[in-house]
Amino acid sequence: MTAVDERTDVLEAARRAKEASVALAPLARAPKDAALHAMADALEARLDEILAANADDVARAQANGTPANLVDRLTLTASRVADMAAGLRAAAALPDPVGEVVRGYTLPNGLEVRQVRVPLGVVGIIYEARPNVTVDAAGLCLKSGNAALLRGSSSAYASNTALVAVLRDAVEASGLPADSVVLVPGESRESVKHLMRARGLVDVLIPRGGADLIRSVVEESTVPVIETGAGNCHVYVDAETDVAMAVSILLNSKTQRTSVCNAAETLLVHRDAVEAFLPAGITAMTGAGVTLHGDEAVVAAAAELGVEAVPATEDDWYAEYYSLDIAVRVVDSLDDAVDHIRRYGSSHTEAIVTTSQAAAKRFVARVDSAAVMVNASTRFTDGGEFGFGAEIGISTQKLHARGPMGLPEMTSTKYVVVGEGHVRA
Amino acid sequence: MTAVDERTDVLEAARRAKEASVALAPLARAPKDAALHAMADALEARLDEILAANADDVARAQANGTPANLVDRLTLTASRVADMAAGLRAAAALPDPVGEVVRGYTLPNGLEVRQVRVPLGVVGIIYEARPNVTVDAAGLCLKSGNAALLRGSSSAYASNTALVAVLRDAVEASGLPADSVVLVPGESRESVKHLMRARGLVDVLIPRGGADLIRSVVEESTVPVIETGAGNCHVYVDAETDVAMAVSILLNSKTQRTSVCNAAETLLVHRDAVEAFLPAGITAMTGAGVTLHGDEAVVAAAAELGVEAVPATEDDWYAEYYSLDIAVRVVDSLDDAVDHIRRYGSSHTEAIVTTSQAAAKRFVARVDSAAVMVNASTRFTDGGEFGFGAEIGISTQKLHARGPMGLPEMTSTKYVVVGEGHVRA
Repeated sequence: MTAVDERTDVLEAARRAKEASVALAPLARAPKDAALHAMADALEARLDEILAANADDVARAQANGTPANLVDRLTLTASRVADMAAGLRAAAALPDPVGEVVRGYTLPNGLEVRQVRVPLGVVGIIYEARPNVTVDAAGLCLKSGNAALLRGSSSAYASNTALVAVLRDAVEASGLPADSVVLVPGESRESVKHLMRARGLVDVLIPRGGADLIRSVVEESTVPVIETGAGNCHVYVDAETDVAMAVSILLNSKTQRTSVCNAAETLLVHRDAVEAFLPAGITAMTGAGVTLHGDEAVVAAAAELGVEAVPATEDDWYAEYYSLDIAVRVVDSLDDAVDHIRRYGSSHTEAIVTTSQAAAKRFVARVDSAAVMVNASTRFTDGGEFGFGAEIGISTQKLHARGPMGLPEMTSTKYVVVGEGHVRA
Repeated sequence: MTAVDERTDVLEAARRAKEASVALAPLARAPKDAALHAMADALEARLDEILAANADDVARAQANGTPANLVDRLTLTASRVADMAAGLRAAAALPDPVGEVVRGYTLPNGLEVRQVRVPLGVVGIIYEARPNVTVDAAGLCLKSGNAALLRGSSSAYASNTALVAVLRDAVEASGLPADSVVLVPGESRESVKHLMRARGLVDVLIPRGGADLIRSVVEESTVPVIETGAGNCHVYVDAETDVAMAVSILLNSKTQRTSVCNAAETLLVHRDAVEAFLPAGITAMTGAGVTLHGDEAVVAAAAELGVEAVPATEDDWYAEYYSLDIAVRVVDSLDDAVDHIRRYGSSHTEAIVTTSQAAAKRFVARVDSAAVMVNASTRFTDGGEFGFGAEIGISTQKLHARGPMGLPEMTSTKYVVVGEGHVRA
């Protein structure tokens, strides 16, 4: 395929999604939920076809020497497909955000003003390895009245092609446009670039994946982007703290799952908490297999316990390890902790562990992140944990949506103003 | 100044604004309102200085042969400065959006979740001729806890420099950082480009001005942008309509003020309303000095009344005349009107004039614009008319804010989650 052909194909795919979005926008909840159930049923009915396509991707990945953990993420099984189907049925059970009246009032002149939620239109999702994102994203887009324009990883192209074919057939059979779910054609990096320039056809792009992918989309896209995912989360242990609670929250934030954006990557300890907390904290972390990257005070405290901590460099404060590593620093004050977070953090989630109401209030007011936890694990920043029922990603930007994005975050609004011949004086 | 120097200066200005935004973010309402009153008082106290600087801009503009209407927009008078001061005092009287709890609930596990409004941080405004925007924008940014990074027109550089100096002194005297209000240094087009690349220092850019300015910012900025202003608004006269109401709304939408984005630029008439409405509509418009650009049916109907309508070309359907011109087309159905609007419109404001509830409902559901008016003038899409008390612009994009933007639209949110040692299972 030539570069020109590919650009034409991507824009044509976007145009078809745009057309479908026009039909989806005014739909009531019932036909959308029916389509979601049809999609779930079809995934289960056509399991063999999906697994066969996935086997091709897996064989190709193995032949290319892809690491085992990535092959695992790529691999579909009957149980994983059943989970996808369950996700679609769960989406059907959620309230429809479209049509919600966000604000409504009558002006002194009698004009009735309502601000009503409407779909965004075409939502472009750019994502890596895991094929379950194909189904999750398609379902959440459809539930919120948006057409889904999906650009998955080339390593999962056969799987995604099969999944989208199944979903499209089901959507069409239920009476909605097949183009409610469109896979961006082509496996080259160029197809992502064409997508990023499809302003007017694509209403928003949501990149889900590694930092490099997200950075390049943010830098190059003329389509509005919602930045997701990067997470250098901090746990700050305050001067006045409950040591057992601090240890428990630290361990959970760092080790409950390391490969996720809401895992803690840095521990900050108030100087006055060093004596009471730090030995317990170091012992618990090394006991859980965590490697410490510490400043001088931390390296010394670890040595006293017979533990070897790696001296931290400037890079450690920025690091998103996504592994059993943590950077540890002693700070002179809560404000110094806030300054550290502001300088090195990614504005995702920070936690304070404190018994002081004043400290909690000051930390919450001054930390500029999507989520601030008081005496709770950073791992709670999650659409599921927040009770949203679904999550399309975690926004780390400030415009439109910040933090876990549920169905309402996949909508825009429209002002509807009703008069009786009103004109402006 | 060399290009490198200018880039350094712009980034340094952004850095100072960012620093100030950190101090502004946690402020309660009272100190912000006090600063706004101090700013208003200072404008009045230092009127002579402001008018002298403005006289330089005006003299320069006249020497350059600037058209009289633009010179008028640039010119400050005691009364215009008093209006600016009044605007600041009005902003002080508005509720503070910061700290508003948008959503709040307790999860089954006892975690308390609150989504709280917080400032965006640094708001960059790029605007043309009118120096009053300098004061309005600075005031609304400060009220909403944001630092204002202002990049006005080079033609108003002396005026803006004087105004910002006065505002900064007042802000500082009231105990807030002077850098809460920063004028971007340099008058070259390049300084806008540096601003557009200051991602991480500038949280959002709002271009206010002509279509070319807005397009170039949207295309080139890596800082998130809120698109404002373009308006090709439509009035659709339905098959079932109140002719007198339709004439009144059309006239008001088109002629009450022509140079604004919420003025109507196109009239669509249902074929079944042609006989009853069109002659009255044509007569009213030509009586108000409006030039018609019509399709064949319109040209013929005008000819019967002895009025010469200009045959419309494809360009007329796209046109934002901002003048006493209107494009007029007869359509076969409401859906054809919606299709026309979708194809040629700018998604700002569209009005339907109808006596039919079904038609109103269908038009509202299918028109994808920031505002949809039923039996009311397009001119009502305005923060002041909507009762917001202030307006930073009218967003025509779908992300973050759509339609008139008041103070809440100048904020982001933050999740605050309070536990008692909660960890994830």
